[in-house]
Amino acid sequence: KVDGPRLWDSLMEMAKIGPGIAGGNNRQTLTDADAEGRALFQRWCEAAGMSMGVDAMGTMFATRAGEDPEALPVYVGSHLDTQPTGGKFDGVLGVLGGLEVIRSLNDLGIRTRHPIVLTNWANEEGARFAPAMLASGVFAGMIDLEHAYSRQDQDGLTYGAELERIGWKGEEPVGARKMHAYYELHIEQGPILEAEGKEIGVVTHCQGLWWLEFTLTGREAHTGSTPMAMRVNAGLAMARILEMVQEVAMGEQPGAVGGVGQMKFSPNSRNVLPGKAVFTVDIRTPDQEKLDRMRAEIERRAAAICADLGVGCAVEAVGHFDPVTFSPELVGTVRRAAERLGYSHMDIISGAGHDACWAARVAQATMIFCPCVNGLSHNEAEEISPEWAAAGADVLLHAVLETAGV
Amino acid sequence: KVDGPRLWDSLMEMAKIGPGIAGGNNRQTLTDADAEGRALFQRWCEAAGMSMGVDAMGTMFATRAGEDPEALPVYVGSHLDTQPTGGKFDGVLGVLGGLEVIRSLNDLGIRTRHPIVLTNWANEEGARFAPAMLASGVFAGMIDLEHAYSRQDQDGLTYGAELERIGWKGEEPVGARKMHAYYELHIEQGPILEAEGKEIGVVTHCQGLWWLEFTLTGREAHTGSTPMAMRVNAGLAMARILEMVQEVAMGEQPGAVGGVGQMKFSPNSRNVLPGKAVFTVDIRTPDQEKLDRMRAEIERRAAAICADLGVGCAVEAVGHFDPVTFSPELVGTVRRAAERLGYSHMDIISGAGHDACWAARVAQATMIFCPCVNGLSHNEAEEISPEWAAAGADVLLHAVLETAGV
Ligand SMILES: NC(=O)NCCC(=O)O
Ligand SMILES: NC(=O)NCCC(=O)O
Repeated sequence: KVDGPRLWDSLMEMAKIGPGIAGGNNRQTLTDADAEGRALFQRWCEAAGMSMGVDAMGTMFATRAGEDPEALPVYVGSHLDTQPTGGKFDGVLGVLGGLEVIRSLNDLGIRTRHPIVLTNWANEEGARFAPAMLASGVFAGMIDLEHAYSRQDQDGLTYGAELERIGWKGEEPVGARKMHAYYELHIEQGPILEAEGKEIGVVTHCQGLWWLEFTLTGREAHTGSTPMAMRVNAGLAMARILEMVQEVAMGEQPGAVGGVGQMKFSPNSRNVLPGKAVFTVDIRTPDQEKLDRMRAEIERRAAAICADLGVGCAVEAVGHFDPVTFSPELVGTVRRAAERLGYSHMDIISGAGHDACWAARVAQATMIFCPCVNGLSHNEAEEISPEWAAAGADVLLHAVLETAGV
Repeated sequence: KVDGPRLWDSLMEMAKIGPGIAGGNNRQTLTDADAEGRALFQRWCEAAGMSMGVDAMGTMFATRAGEDPEALPVYVGSHLDTQPTGGKFDGVLGVLGGLEVIRSLNDLGIRTRHPIVLTNWANEEGARFAPAMLASGVFAGMIDLEHAYSRQDQDGLTYGAELERIGWKGEEPVGARKMHAYYELHIEQGPILEAEGKEIGVVTHCQGLWWLEFTLTGREAHTGSTPMAMRVNAGLAMARILEMVQEVAMGEQPGAVGGVGQMKFSPNSRNVLPGKAVFTVDIRTPDQEKLDRMRAEIERRAAAICADLGVGCAVEAVGHFDPVTFSPELVGTVRRAAERLGYSHMDIISGAGHDACWAARVAQATMIFCPCVNGLSHNEAEEISPEWAAAGADVLLHAVLETAGV
């Protein structure tokens, strides 16, 4: 078993970097806080005897050598970046849980046949630069490197420029590494494990996603002196699309979600009807057919809503992944590890996207979930117990040992 | 008659300060561009022989002396501040049309019995600091000076601090001046005069307004892993309120408008259900009873929408004026002036709010409208013809002469 209190101490230590306003974290990707978090992680890795590699997307790979020089490494990890009002565990648990696995192996003097590489993927959250899981997407060959570099935040700063600015643009070609297997420990970010009273989620699938960025074009006009009949109201069209997305998602229950987290009016003045409304629809379901059907229905109905109001409607897909089936072999390894350790467990489908979803394209991969309080994540109030964290890391340790060989 | 080309030249000269991105202006209140516009206006006033006074809200008053030392001044003016994506004429025409009146009187060697004071009211637009017509509201005793100073822009900067920063906080107590009468020339900002083929709008009334700022509180949560049934979605509640406001306004046709120009999600991240949505509903009608009914209905239905979704709902009135009836005597003077000059004219109700609405609380007041192309305003594409501008200034000249006495 891992050293639970040491893992918890490291989680709390990392949480001091990029503190939020309500007990959580704001350590968004490629900010100064991200750089500070990376430096701390690097110090910890080096202290644990690992050597650090960094690729051209800024992903960090810390290697613990294996005994067989021919064997491909077993990868573990997740991400240290957070939402603007994020929690202390989303992503961080997977990275520092992996670090705890390495520290425990060191303590026990255990050498593995395969090397183990501990990974901190860059820009998993996609909050500052869409899409999410950007660096792992490039790693898996699903996203073009130059496209990734050109992604802009809300101030127009690009991923490429910010990566250079914080000094974490590595030399290593993205995706050059080959993986024997990839394991990611993560909090569930949903309510199921807690509700079912299980300590471990054995993650069999991940639902697919579309991020549809709508740009609606109306006509800026005075809110007071413009008669209702003359309005070309991009804000009203947006409101109708939000309601429609809710309807479409409700119509596909169970097993589908839809919502909007980001939006912007222009010029955003109280007495100006918005000339422009830009917002991103987020739809997800584990069912490929349903995912495509939802996207088509939303685009069709949005076009009709806008046509009815005379509003221009352009849609760009700024994020996408198809539903993922994780490696049955690794899933079995995780299930066996949980059994062996005596942790209650259940199979579960990931509601959130993860770097494991892209890793699964280039290697056998799976995930381990631990519960979180009230299913809350992407909220500074996100909470887990030290026991849950330790149980997750224990399962990770045992799964890695089985796959990496002793 | 006034010198139309000179008026147009001045309009075009002022439009060079704080240029927009699409041919209009971004000269928002208390910005550096505002300060630059004020300095140019001051030079022009001094060149026309006027003396400048500035009050503690930053409103500029340029006086042309009268012959009777006892007579209260006749005030003319409007505002030089603009929307973030504003036009070249909204407000500016009233100030520089007033300047053209003074210049014409100088050219003709006409002395008036009453002094004439040319006014540039501060923060008419209310785009940066709500409410609109802030300085004239304080002048009329309808808004508290300290409240005005404390108003914040979206970056949290206060009116008081920004006024000091740009160096235009005057010594004069706000509202100390007494007015014999107040005339304001303005573009209609709506479609009626152009549609009816009239050169002059004789403004008899102004519709009343409520700005209702809603703060909806939901629960930040992950868009992917949070089941539909567990969401407390402030964005969805906002969408329903926008649609409801549209319904309420349509239900009160004709003679009512309602819409939303400004809104903000927090944390505004694509994969976070908004924990907070803040937006301002703008409703207007010339009918006092209808105005109160609309407000009550919107607040009642918004509360029900939010209760249904479990979303918290707080409402603050950040702007308000009751419908205004302008001075029948001055309205008659404007109508006679248009007749005398041979301009086609019609009576009209102002759809937008104006400083004249507050001036009407402390003096006899009215307005003169000229048409604008396609009724478009609060849009950089706002346009008028030099002939329309000159006709408006001619009517202003004649009305002022009748009221100020020769
Ligand atoms: N795990 C997680 O929150 N990832 C962010 C990407 C997503 O929106 O699913
Ligand atoms: N005239 C004008 O656009 N004033 C701004 C205040 C309002 O919203 O009516």
